[in-house]
Amino acid sequence: MPTYTAPVRDTLFVLNEVLGYERYSNLAGFADSSADVLEAILTEGARLTENVIQPTNRAGDIEGCVRHDDGSVTTPKVFRAAFDEYLQGGWMGLAAPEEFGGQGLPYTVHTAVSEYMISGNMALLMYAGLTQGAIAALIAHGTEEQKATWLPKLVEGGWTGTMNLTEPHCGTDLGLLRTRAVPAGDGSYRISGQKIFISAGEHDMADNIVHLVLARIEGAPKGTKGISLFIVPKFLPDASGSPGQRNGVSCGSIEEKMGIHGNATCVMNYDAATGWLLGEANGGLKAMFTMMNEARLGVGLQGLAVGEAAYQAAAVYARERLQGRALTGPKEPDRPADPIIVHPDVRRILMTMRSVNESGRALALWTALKSDIAHRSADEKERQDADDALGLMTPIVKGVLTDKGFEHAVMAQQVFGGHGYIEEHGMSQFVRDARIAMIYEGANGIQALDLVGRKLPMHGGRAIQAFFKEVGDFCEENRADADMAPFTKALKKGLNDLQAATMWLMQNAMQKPDNAGAASTDYMHLFGLVALGYMWGLMVKASQARLAVGAGDAASFYENKIVTGRYFMERVMPETAAHLARLSAGADAMMALPAEAF
Amino acid sequence: MPTYTAPVRDTLFVLNEVLGYERYSNLAGFADSSADVLEAILTEGARLTENVIQPTNRAGDIEGCVRHDDGSVTTPKVFRAAFDEYLQGGWMGLAAPEEFGGQGLPYTVHTAVSEYMISGNMALLMYAGLTQGAIAALIAHGTEEQKATWLPKLVEGGWTGTMNLTEPHCGTDLGLLRTRAVPAGDGSYRISGQKIFISAGEHDMADNIVHLVLARIEGAPKGTKGISLFIVPKFLPDASGSPGQRNGVSCGSIEEKMGIHGNATCVMNYDAATGWLLGEANGGLKAMFTMMNEARLGVGLQGLAVGEAAYQAAAVYARERLQGRALTGPKEPDRPADPIIVHPDVRRILMTMRSVNESGRALALWTALKSDIAHRSADEKERQDADDALGLMTPIVKGVLTDKGFEHAVMAQQVFGGHGYIEEHGMSQFVRDARIAMIYEGANGIQALDLVGRKLPMHGGRAIQAFFKEVGDFCEENRADADMAPFTKALKKGLNDLQAATMWLMQNAMQKPDNAGAASTDYMHLFGLVALGYMWGLMVKASQARLAVGAGDAASFYENKIVTGRYFMERVMPETAAHLARLSAGADAMMALPAEAF
Repeated sequence: MPTYTAPVRDTLFVLNEVLGYERYSNLAGFADSSADVLEAILTEGARLTENVIQPTNRAGDIEGCVRHDDGSVTTPKVFRAAFDEYLQGGWMGLAAPEEFGGQGLPYTVHTAVSEYMISGNMALLMYAGLTQGAIAALIAHGTEEQKATWLPKLVEGGWTGTMNLTEPHCGTDLGLLRTRAVPAGDGSYRISGQKIFISAGEHDMADNIVHLVLARIEGAPKGTKGISLFIVPKFLPDASGSPGQRNGVSCGSIEEKMGIHGNATCVMNYDAATGWLLGEANGGLKAMFTMMNEARLGVGLQGLAVGEAAYQAAAVYARERLQGRALTGPKEPDRPADPIIVHPDVRRILMTMRSVNESGRALALWTALKSDIAHRSADEKERQDADDALGLMTPIVKGVLTDKGFEHAVMAQQVFGGHGYIEEHGMSQFVRDARIAMIYEGANGIQALDLVGRKLPMHGGRAIQAFFKEVGDFCEENRADADMAPFTKALKKGLNDLQAATMWLMQNAMQKPDNAGAASTDYMHLFGLVALGYMWGLMVKASQARLAVGAGDAASFYENKIVTGRYFMERVMPETAAHLARLSAGADAMMALPAEAF
Repeated sequence: MPTYTAPVRDTLFVLNEVLGYERYSNLAGFADSSADVLEAILTEGARLTENVIQPTNRAGDIEGCVRHDDGSVTTPKVFRAAFDEYLQGGWMGLAAPEEFGGQGLPYTVHTAVSEYMISGNMALLMYAGLTQGAIAALIAHGTEEQKATWLPKLVEGGWTGTMNLTEPHCGTDLGLLRTRAVPAGDGSYRISGQKIFISAGEHDMADNIVHLVLARIEGAPKGTKGISLFIVPKFLPDASGSPGQRNGVSCGSIEEKMGIHGNATCVMNYDAATGWLLGEANGGLKAMFTMMNEARLGVGLQGLAVGEAAYQAAAVYARERLQGRALTGPKEPDRPADPIIVHPDVRRILMTMRSVNESGRALALWTALKSDIAHRSADEKERQDADDALGLMTPIVKGVLTDKGFEHAVMAQQVFGGHGYIEEHGMSQFVRDARIAMIYEGANGIQALDLVGRKLPMHGGRAIQAFFKEVGDFCEENRADADMAPFTKALKKGLNDLQAATMWLMQNAMQKPDNAGAASTDYMHLFGLVALGYMWGLMVKASQARLAVGAGDAASFYENKIVTGRYFMERVMPETAAHLARLSAGADAMMALPAEAF
């Protein structure tokens, strides 16, 4: 079974030395997480992950979830106790408002700790993640009464949440959805229809499950304009707020899936179930979208987290597995063979994962910090800038970090050779689990379209211009520094490719929209490389600054950072040119064949 | 369940119009497969695949293999009947010599048909593929008596073969192997030891299983020089040649694996089992290597075959699934949504798979033809040239087509969205099955080292110089043709990158071997792109030639080829520059960190 050590040191480096976390002590919640407190929280999150959560991962995969004839679903035996410890530690409400039982800490801290826990057990943490999505929706759109009814139970009481969007004939295209809502006359609605792919739709880890369900009120407009969001609990709360009468919602079946076996993926049948409108009638999509940024960042984090866990397992194996000799002569002549970490091609795999993970972590935290600023700053301009950056970077964090996370799981499995293909070492599980993050919460092709079609042109390109300026200024400011020059040069090259790609889109996609669609995935990955490269620029600069004043025993940490950053610039960044070349080819050859030719 | 249609038309195009199959009628077996016969064989192979083999694929994955307490292993119920039809059709011995019951047809034809059958059911075809490996080893190294004893049973009699190399502590590094062979005094040996990851090591589809086992004869030199190859049957043949006494070999357990569930992956325990030396004492590795080219081409074919099956399933789904509207306005306004094939990003996925598959098929057949020429030509120079090309291209076919095949399975799964992640549609199975081909028969990192370390410098670079000249001449000869110029230009650019990479290796890897290891995987993929691009050059030229003389009803086939070739040049080929940039960075940053820093 793979081992895992939460990268607390690395998180602290990013927060304190790269992003200047303490500068934000004027924002709500930040003052409550000074450097000492921050380190204590991360350390406690690491402890829970390593001792409690991660040890349930493999068992969860093997045992999976089982639906019984009465529609109930049991989760892997070890899950409940681990989830209870998570709840008791107050982790569910880490960033939730104190008035509902939360701790009101920054979303950034929640993000940092969530990475560890997802590395430990992605399927288990999904029960928490979906609940946090429901909490966010209720905070944003709930009436005072709704907040009082549901939030304390979700934050502290162990009730869990779900998101019910997909139907058999409608996934990405929600305009097609058919689930109906009929007013009951008492302010509630009767919800009927079938939803599929509902993660955590039914399970045995909570006293109640709060479903947020998209449905169409009788007589509502067709398409996406006629969709509303409803709160539909498994048990209707009684007068005391405790779970009372069973509602007309049940799990019809659970899916056999490639991975995340510990999380029940349910077909949910709604049969005149009682529900209450959340937010405005016909405003369901809008309400869902307010949760979207954080939900998508959460999925991006899954990519990073599983990729990191896989990397760590591969690194341990590469240090221990003896096979062959170094090309430069035996490194451990007294042993029958050298550890495979001596082989450059194994190093290539490890360094690729490492260099992308470390910058991916920085990018996830950078983006989470923008979310905090956007929600908590008193300064309107600061909020707007942060919200721009958050919106821009969300599809990139989701689309790029999940693609990379899956690639990393596959690469780590390759380090194990045949031992990676059998289930015993857990490497296959990483691959199977990581795969879903590229699909749900908007498939990555949808993220790319969101970036190109919505985020790029929004406010006349304000967000992207600000990002280009920030990265460009960084390159310019550090160009004269001989130690930084190799890094800024490579980053500038990537930025130039990105700007050329953006220009190409402006010139070619307006009148021919297929050119935007044809470019979108390459553009997203090109953007991702520049964003990761920028994180490397910041991290290398912080490391050089620290070494310049003397880092003592910690010097190797900073030296290793610089080497890893160099590897990224040399070996990962050059891909930008290929993305630019591809997308500049346009849509013609892509769209030329008639559909029946395929 | 996915549908599959064998691409007979495409295979015939490659063989007849691109590779000029009929020019080789002077070679043994080729005259027996004139155009009519060739088409009849492919059509019959297609029929068997579509009607008999492919329908067993999903059931095989679900049911898997079961080991019983007595050490016996049962395969999926539907496998035996399908395998019997395969045997009755004479497919096992299609390319085996007639004197042992085979049909003596070209290996090229075997390759063409095998692609279909592996697309139909990779796990099932592995039982055949391993048997064909054993047949090849016996033909190359068996005594007359050994050939007479074993070959008819393997070719016609339904006995199957295995290759036993790996031990728990030794995979790639065979010098570490410990399995012992003790002379019994009667010409036979007693073999003892444990082998792992033995595909088809024990099962219920054959009356006997012939294990080819690497072991170390008592007192043999250490390392790879002291390894010998043995024939160790499950049942010792009796006087009539039928399975007699049970030998001291048994299956200790079978592995839980990510995929190829229908093929039993066994731990094999040898307990003073009777075996006979195959080939020379201490010449086991050499004997294994004579099978290596064909075995590796066979695994490369698995990549192509599963990638093709996945592509076809995705194409069908993309034409049928209704979701969203075309960016250019509704294509099917009378239906609730357009089929997703209208979306450029879906097209991008389909065209990428298609353009690589079609050129991958051409490359596999080009290489198989080299094998035929190398083995069957009467002309020594022709044999040598073909053998050079075969040796050079083998690691590329294995390493590149299996990496691409897995990528395609993942891409095809993405087209299905959430429906691809559940097991129901079979897309997860393609991903899980395709994954192993990147690992076994020499992990792809080993293929890259074989290319850079052995194939490149062999005979002073003769093979690679010949390939460069062939591709360079092709570009030069077609440069003035306006229709060909866009293709030759892109191909020439790729060739230039490959030649620059080769030069970089010559200048940097001799004195610093880590630079070779650090470059190897990028070099292999760069080479693969140029090889696939060359196939596209040949295919486009053949298509243009045919259209020039009038192709009648078939015109769209050739027009689609040209569009697909254009897509490849525009969207796949540009990756060569990124590979060159990466590998030119050298090994320094890759190797700088101490092992304990990982």
